[in-house]
Amino acid sequence: MNLSLNTCQQMDQQDPLRGLREQFQIPPGMIYLDGNSLGVLPRATADRLQAVVQQEWGVGLIRSYNTAQWFEQPHILGERIAPWLGAGAGEVVVTDTTSVNLFKVLSMAMAMAAQDHPGQRVLLSERGNFPTDLYMAESLCAQHGWQLRCVEAAQLAQHLTTDVGVLMLTHVNYRTGSMWDMAHWSEAAHAVGALAVWDLAHSAGAVPLNLKAAQADFAVGCGYKYLNGGPGAPAFVWAQPEHVQRAQQPLTGWWGHARPFAFTPGYEPAAGMGRFLCGSQSVLAMAALGCGLATFERSLPLGGMVALRQKSLALTDTFIELVQTQCAGHGLVLETPLAHDKRGSQVSFSRSEGAYAVVQALIERDVIGDFRAGDPALGEADIMRFGFTPLYVGFEDVWRAVAHLKDVLDAQSWRDARFAVQNKVT
Amino acid sequence: MNLSLNTCQQMDQQDPLRGLREQFQIPPGMIYLDGNSLGVLPRATADRLQAVVQQEWGVGLIRSYNTAQWFEQPHILGERIAPWLGAGAGEVVVTDTTSVNLFKVLSMAMAMAAQDHPGQRVLLSERGNFPTDLYMAESLCAQHGWQLRCVEAAQLAQHLTTDVGVLMLTHVNYRTGSMWDMAHWSEAAHAVGALAVWDLAHSAGAVPLNLKAAQADFAVGCGYKYLNGGPGAPAFVWAQPEHVQRAQQPLTGWWGHARPFAFTPGYEPAAGMGRFLCGSQSVLAMAALGCGLATFERSLPLGGMVALRQKSLALTDTFIELVQTQCAGHGLVLETPLAHDKRGSQVSFSRSEGAYAVVQALIERDVIGDFRAGDPALGEADIMRFGFTPLYVGFEDVWRAVAHLKDVLDAQSWRDARFAVQNKVT
Repeated sequence: MNLSLNTCQQMDQQDPLRGLREQFQIPPGMIYLDGNSLGVLPRATADRLQAVVQQEWGVGLIRSYNTAQWFEQPHILGERIAPWLGAGAGEVVVTDTTSVNLFKVLSMAMAMAAQDHPGQRVLLSERGNFPTDLYMAESLCAQHGWQLRCVEAAQLAQHLTTDVGVLMLTHVNYRTGSMWDMAHWSEAAHAVGALAVWDLAHSAGAVPLNLKAAQADFAVGCGYKYLNGGPGAPAFVWAQPEHVQRAQQPLTGWWGHARPFAFTPGYEPAAGMGRFLCGSQSVLAMAALGCGLATFERSLPLGGMVALRQKSLALTDTFIELVQTQCAGHGLVLETPLAHDKRGSQVSFSRSEGAYAVVQALIERDVIGDFRAGDPALGEADIMRFGFTPLYVGFEDVWRAVAHLKDVLDAQSWRDARFAVQNKVT
Repeated sequence: MNLSLNTCQQMDQQDPLRGLREQFQIPPGMIYLDGNSLGVLPRATADRLQAVVQQEWGVGLIRSYNTAQWFEQPHILGERIAPWLGAGAGEVVVTDTTSVNLFKVLSMAMAMAAQDHPGQRVLLSERGNFPTDLYMAESLCAQHGWQLRCVEAAQLAQHLTTDVGVLMLTHVNYRTGSMWDMAHWSEAAHAVGALAVWDLAHSAGAVPLNLKAAQADFAVGCGYKYLNGGPGAPAFVWAQPEHVQRAQQPLTGWWGHARPFAFTPGYEPAAGMGRFLCGSQSVLAMAALGCGLATFERSLPLGGMVALRQKSLALTDTFIELVQTQCAGHGLVLETPLAHDKRGSQVSFSRSEGAYAVVQALIERDVIGDFRAGDPALGEADIMRFGFTPLYVGFEDVWRAVAHLKDVLDAQSWRDARFAVQNKVT
């Protein structure tokens, strides 16, 4: 074994970002490799929520929409997210859910396509995209008489033909952690006259992003994964500035009106990204997201996303190497690309048997990863996912997680009946 | 003065619901008459949120989707709201915002109308409806080639003609507090072959509701007003059970899928109201709403909504009588119906001059009401709104609020320049 526990402990000692972990309240002894599902709790969140509840709501009451800038929070939080996306000032708002925001941007992209290239009525995506993206696209395609074309990732290029009006991709695949080259595929979409819509659910806060340089057209993303905004945190939405006024997103609620308190009967969209807002947003949820963003901002003097990415790749490299050396012969198949430029911040292994039980056995040992069932009809294997959030995961965590995995596999403890039954909501 | 302070204090002593106020954390000395904008803070909310943050999120982390029933919260909260709406088990879910939910139910109602009465492509509403309702309707009408017909309330009957496919009304008007007869207008809609969609933003928790007996077709409502769920609390949605499978609402996100964790590429809606869900909901926001609902449930042994309504009407009667006797000659015009069966739980007065400044002068005295600008182009006067939440407002509050109003008007203190500038987000 080249990578000893001692080596990993030394890597932690040399890690310039190691102090960032102190910002989080991680249960003692837990190795949390599921930040790609739900980020851990920042220490500051509880106190901040108490202040919002007791002071802003309890005492300030309705006045806090002005005095505590409740109305401005979607913009204030958007401004803080923008730099992590390679987006400019005024280009991001925080609101609603990823699914609802995807509905807004797909509606706009399809309306723009209908204006510019009325014959191009295909929405192209990856068959293994996160299902909610495909469901929203399916609904909009049915409504507008478009075709939803879902293809295997390897076949994307040959299906990106001149009948495609919108290319919709999730930048980092939720199952495999495989990452698309955003600039390449945005350019490829533009080359056939299509618009490129990106879901950043597994990218924001996880990998470097540069929406503007990549010439993406629209993007949405999630607040509760790598951004540590808490369960069900509000999502965000971005549009290329020149697109904002090209079409109207259909969820035309009062928060997106140019003058919401004029209470005029006709809808008039706000000048900029405000028009992507719709109804009242949870102030509690936005406050928690603000605390999550603060944990990222603390990394800025230490190198910000460049440093976080460097550590993320070192973590996933270490995990892959340790699993491949320590767990050889146990039928684990790496589903995540080895090439750094194709890898997000997670590592997935498939296993033909017992993937669910192995994950459960690890969870019992306080090593939290998760399981995603493959669809046998589609030739997909069951997957064990391990997310590596460089803000709070260390190299010793990686070493110990693999030691547990090796134990579970060597001793076949995953075969215990208590791990066999899927109790997750299905 | 017939209604003396002493009389009002006696009314409080005789009020069987007076103990319910202890459930809330109302700033000392404040008279809060704005529960129709944002309900006050229940005492239990802060501790509950701490438990959700520290235990469910902090310790339970991703496991809490199962162990703390995070996924089930939209249904669990819906079951608790249903009895206050006159809805049955499994008929209400809590999710998203009122505006987004309105988009869902209007889409369904319009799709059903297109099937049943394809020639009836008018969406009829009240011109003075809450603007977001009209904005959402405007967007959907443009999309589906319908006409949005907005008429004055008094002209509704004559415009409810056989070209109307959907009648959309807010049950209690946000400006005037005027209440529609839900059974009468639902029947009138059905008589012309139209569906009746109701917005209960100012009704849920404020007035008795019986959606099923009234034969309403769809309803949406708000969690942050009378339900005390906190700023931007999630909204709710109800559909007549026989309508649920008639059409597909277009926001087909994974939380509305029959098997969200099967991660299958094709959308298959959940069997019942679950199909109105879309994306991940804020667990913090749902927890706070649960605390708000608990404050209502405490009224059940004391008579529940019947008792709350009786007190609400006594409060608004008292307020109207006191203002009319104490503030006579100051140009206040009652905009709220005197008839009990036409009145919600608020009272509005218009004033041709200084309505904004009067409200500001009252707020400075810790009497919190609010202001809604009238649109002069539409012949609307500026309105001072006062909401009366029987859970926590008492008769002495009413007396003192009117005494302050009288002072402000008698002394013309509202003319002070500091009250003149509208600093609210506009």
